[in-house]
Amino acid sequence: MSGGTKARGRRPGGGDTRGAVLAAARAEFAAHGYQKASMRAIARGAGVDAALLHHYFGTKDRLFMAALEFPLDPRTVVETVFAGDPATVGERVAGFVLELWERPEVRDRLLALVRTAAASEEVAALMRGFMVTELVARAAEQLDVEQPELRVELVMSQIVGLAMARYVIAVEPLASAPPEVLAPMLGRTVQGYLTG
Amino acid sequence: MSGGTKARGRRPGGGDTRGAVLAAARAEFAAHGYQKASMRAIARGAGVDAALLHHYFGTKDRLFMAALEFPLDPRTVVETVFAGDPATVGERVAGFVLELWERPEVRDRLLALVRTAAASEEVAALMRGFMVTELVARAAEQLDVEQPELRVELVMSQIVGLAMARYVIAVEPLASAPPEVLAPMLGRTVQGYLTG
Repeated sequence: MSGGTKARGRRPGGGDTRGAVLAAARAEFAAHGYQKASMRAIARGAGVDAALLHHYFGTKDRLFMAALEFPLDPRTVVETVFAGDPATVGERVAGFVLELWERPEVRDRLLALVRTAAASEEVAALMRGFMVTELVARAAEQLDVEQPELRVELVMSQIVGLAMARYVIAVEPLASAPPEVLAPMLGRTVQGYLTG
Repeated sequence: MSGGTKARGRRPGGGDTRGAVLAAARAEFAAHGYQKASMRAIARGAGVDAALLHHYFGTKDRLFMAALEFPLDPRTVVETVFAGDPATVGERVAGFVLELWERPEVRDRLLALVRTAAASEEVAALMRGFMVTELVARAAEQLDVEQPELRVELVMSQIVGLAMARYVIAVEPLASAPPEVLAPMLGRTVQGYLTG
């Protein structure tokens, strides 16, 4: 990045510096994967101070989301749907997902990530590291069952598959089915995976 | 296709003619979609006799499978898993799918088709036409429930999503989970969608 030296010492929230940080983050994540990527290396790559990087971008997961334009915070998902009464977790997951997809800008960004992961092993590996660390592990902590990670990943598989079938392959009648028709069917599947 | 004239009158099972027929089929399917593609137009495009085309390639679905290297006959799937006792259809679908994925050449070809459909709206439209006509409609006929097409498509969505999560994104522990661990969990979901 040619802006590296110029940016040194600037506050990393600023215009050019922000771009330099995100570019350095993408390069570091691509080179080492999500789990092994280092905030220190990203700061070095962008020519900014590591403490300021933390101050302006927060933790590694937040920087990852900013760098990949990931439209959804896994911590919020876990707090919103996986925490709470286990007897109604399926309903909460289904309601959350179907409502999310009604927002085209979120849906389109999530679909773009799925398409990119399907086309590129490098992006698939990045997504894998991020999802396992930030979503699966945290969601599994909320469940008092055997094999919680496997169950959460089966839920994730149904959500990815439903997005593919509904919006990418777009088979009818599924593509046009109203959320309120799908919610109980998806909810029962999720409930079965998580507590069945 | 330069071989068109040369091929005219040849038996369509032969070497160059077969290639010409498959190329003409791909062009016709891409131009008009699966449902509107015409066997007569494909015969004309390949410079072969329409009756001989039917004799050597059979029905449109068989020609489609040959042209796209689709590794699986939807009619067989319907006969093998959707026909039979509705109380155990989930178990049959799960057993069939998980066994199929143990055959790497079939799995790789199916994944290639999913990846291609994710990347190309044209291929997605083709797959949509083929799946709805040859798989969803036939499978729905076997089910004595409300909204049978929607239910079959929800099953399809889970199968596509499981393939994505297990083999493309490859999240652990799902990627390495043995089929016998997944079978009852997938089977219960499928049963829920189809008869629940």
